[in-house]
Amino acid sequence: MERLTSRENEQIKYLSRLMRSKRERRAAGMFVAEGARLCAEALENRVEVLKAYLVPGALERYPQLARALTKTPCDCVEITPELSNRLSDTDTPQGVYCLCRMLDNGPHTVKIDTDGQYLALCGLQDPGNVGTIIRTAEAMGLTGLILAGSCPDIYSPKVLRSTMGSVFRLPIRVAGDEAVLLQEARAAGVKSYAAALHRQACLLPGTGLGPGSLVLIGNEGNGLPDAVVQACDAPLMIQMPGRAESLNAAMAAGIIVWEMARARLSL
Amino acid sequence: MERLTSRENEQIKYLSRLMRSKRERRAAGMFVAEGARLCAEALENRVEVLKAYLVPGALERYPQLARALTKTPCDCVEITPELSNRLSDTDTPQGVYCLCRMLDNGPHTVKIDTDGQYLALCGLQDPGNVGTIIRTAEAMGLTGLILAGSCPDIYSPKVLRSTMGSVFRLPIRVAGDEAVLLQEARAAGVKSYAAALHRQACLLPGTGLGPGSLVLIGNEGNGLPDAVVQACDAPLMIQMPGRAESLNAAMAAGIIVWEMARARLSL
Repeated sequence: MERLTSRENEQIKYLSRLMRSKRERRAAGMFVAEGARLCAEALENRVEVLKAYLVPGALERYPQLARALTKTPCDCVEITPELSNRLSDTDTPQGVYCLCRMLDNGPHTVKIDTDGQYLALCGLQDPGNVGTIIRTAEAMGLTGLILAGSCPDIYSPKVLRSTMGSVFRLPIRVAGDEAVLLQEARAAGVKSYAAALHRQACLLPGTGLGPGSLVLIGNEGNGLPDAVVQACDAPLMIQMPGRAESLNAAMAAGIIVWEMARARLSL
Repeated sequence: MERLTSRENEQIKYLSRLMRSKRERRAAGMFVAEGARLCAEALENRVEVLKAYLVPGALERYPQLARALTKTPCDCVEITPELSNRLSDTDTPQGVYCLCRMLDNGPHTVKIDTDGQYLALCGLQDPGNVGTIIRTAEAMGLTGLILAGSCPDIYSPKVLRSTMGSVFRLPIRVAGDEAVLLQEARAAGVKSYAAALHRQACLLPGTGLGPGSLVLIGNEGNGLPDAVVQACDAPLMIQMPGRAESLNAAMAAGIIVWEMARARLSL
């Protein structure tokens, strides 16, 4: 196995840049998965893994990763614990990194189908929120997720980590413009809902979010822009019997996605 | 108005200690609310506010806070923006701080009633998760929330901030031991559920979590200890039609609390 020990090594410098910069990732069409679980998920799903970088003993410590590497072999490179500590985004790194090709530059995009159920995140700020929403949307069997406006990069270490690997399974599209998305939904006969605290909003429960629905979630602090709310078919609000005025954006998204699963499966 | 300018001032040093140390807060029975919204919420709810510390111009900038201070007057002290920056837990402080008496040392505890609906958090780690769960539980009109095992302090700046003030409205009890809690629930005829990925679990939806129910949520990484799952009346699991193996702890709690509101109000 190839062995790297110097922090001046070009591969290490490349990995480090990919982990720290969205621009580098987008330019290269590559990203780095960190951690045994995330790397195993990348290998087990449809991610093209170009190289795995491991500290000594990692394969013995993480059998799920070792199994995944047996099933989908790729070049393995040994790195020192010191290099791993320098690369890592976490306090207690596991010493496992995979260099991967992005999905959303390739076939990993989302088409709006008549019978699909979609969530669109518009201008969210918090990487943990985006990751958690992706994880929940995948758990609830959504057709796809769209990132509109300016959202955290799904290939940043923080988002990747909080998706727990579901980012490799859920179809995701990174698209800038809400207007284009809404046009596409309308053309497909998919009804669009804007999550908004609005007096005339459709209420959850009570609004069927079954096949053929798209829900837009806005920014943590400001919600969706008025123009986007207007452009959707209807505003949508979660009933809150208590006195709180609103929910955390990720929580609202989670409850909406849960209701979409209930509607689709008649749960 | 009294005016403080020195970082060596005893009041400033006291506020700083209260914001940074759980032990100091518990010993004093006091905490500091930071930010215009949180301070206004403290004043408008049943929190005893001993003093408000404000940078010049804060009352003009935050009318909700000014109104709250008119309705519930308390001593106001002017502090410099430099002192505020030193105190603050955030990058862009609003320069508003209230010294408050804790609720859960006084009457703000939770009794388990036959018709109540309760959530217990057992050994959660992330302050943001605890805050978001409190906010959601209050929004959904839960009877009360119990923090069991070792959880982040609800009066830490991070938890306070992510509750968005709902911590002042939702009855919360900080109690160490799950066994005592479960005994109390049983005595009141309240059914206890352990959120757990368990083969024989009751499923959501399908399990009525109406009046007379208590759900326990475990640690983000490890879930509930087996002994606690065993000690509950039944394990409870959220149906996941997708391939993800689990949900984020806050998200699971949110969906459960939502289902409790649906069951109670027949939504």
